[in-house]
Amino acid sequence: MPHIELDEKLPGIRGLFAFRPETAVLMSELAEVLLHTPGTLSMAERELIATYVSSQNDCFYCQSSHGAIAAIHLDGNEELVRQVKQNFEQAGVSDKLKALLAIAGKVQKSGKNVTADDVERARQQGATDVEIHDTVLIAAAFCMYNRYVDGLATWAPQDADSYRRRAASVARDGYLKSMQTYVKGAQVAAGGQ
Amino acid sequence: MPHIELDEKLPGIRGLFAFRPETAVLMSELAEVLLHTPGTLSMAERELIATYVSSQNDCFYCQSSHGAIAAIHLDGNEELVRQVKQNFEQAGVSDKLKALLAIAGKVQKSGKNVTADDVERARQQGATDVEIHDTVLIAAAFCMYNRYVDGLATWAPQDADSYRRRAASVARDGYLKSMQTYVKGAQVAAGGQ
Repeated sequence: MPHIELDEKLPGIRGLFAFRPETAVLMSELAEVLLHTPGTLSMAERELIATYVSSQNDCFYCQSSHGAIAAIHLDGNEELVRQVKQNFEQAGVSDKLKALLAIAGKVQKSGKNVTADDVERARQQGATDVEIHDTVLIAAAFCMYNRYVDGLATWAPQDADSYRRRAASVARDGYLKSMQTYVKGAQVAAGGQ
Repeated sequence: MPHIELDEKLPGIRGLFAFRPETAVLMSELAEVLLHTPGTLSMAERELIATYVSSQNDCFYCQSSHGAIAAIHLDGNEELVRQVKQNFEQAGVSDKLKALLAIAGKVQKSGKNVTADDVERARQQGATDVEIHDTVLIAAAFCMYNRYVDGLATWAPQDADSYRRRAASVARDGYLKSMQTYVKGAQVAAGGQ
């Protein structure tokens, strides 16, 4: 049972967003900029980083949600998502993404764990400053989202199909638009749109 | 030395905000809503929660910045800020704030660590759902800000006076306005303003 009174029809972060529209709009737009806007890292790569960090934080709702979105961007390859969560160094992803996932894994434990060697490895694989920046910020942001979802004891659907269905609309419409379908009074922030 | 090329005049999160205005505006507005808007928790109480979590994450820049802002809201009582960081259960703060700091400390480690008993303790001291929500989200958000600042190895001033000076303007003008003084092209988001 959630620690505070939430709309019981809305699982995970969705119940929290409906509870507090003032922060929902900002947190949704942050996810939109980091995961769903055009960039040199593909949406699949960025969602895999988010999914990996969420699995390291043992957040079932977030790893299921973002894993399902990643799989859509990967043409339905759910097996690759599983590989990344289990052992990304052996997964069928690029050496560049492996280097970025290694950085994300360090950030998940502590920002201080990231070394110059970790960053050099990513650069050797062609990672740019913006890509390294965004990897660190995606990992850091999911340390927030995961703690928010679990710290208030929100409930999470247990069946994979409900995540697949929701993921289809988020992968298509993005985070801000999806949030606005169920959060009343969430004013759209103008920055970055 | 920072892991990416940043404006070397800007320490901590400020260099990162200048590097990426798209996320700076959202992260500043999130800090504004959580720490600097009117609420039933005082700004001093919310800054103490942010400072405590930052000290538990061993983020020198964030605990110094927010500790200095908390002290301003406490009429200059820097000793109380030190007490909260060292052992909040023995510090000269209300029993309600102690209960909220206990929740924040759990969130800093993992959202899953927060128990129904932790929440019940806060309720016994009069904490509302919004206050419990905001405590969890402030703690979670500082797990993001701290990892962002340290994960990219930003530099931090070592003298307390530079934090005191900066804190005076942030405590007065808030996070969004302060950020806009040094980040070019940071469009103001409309949500919540």
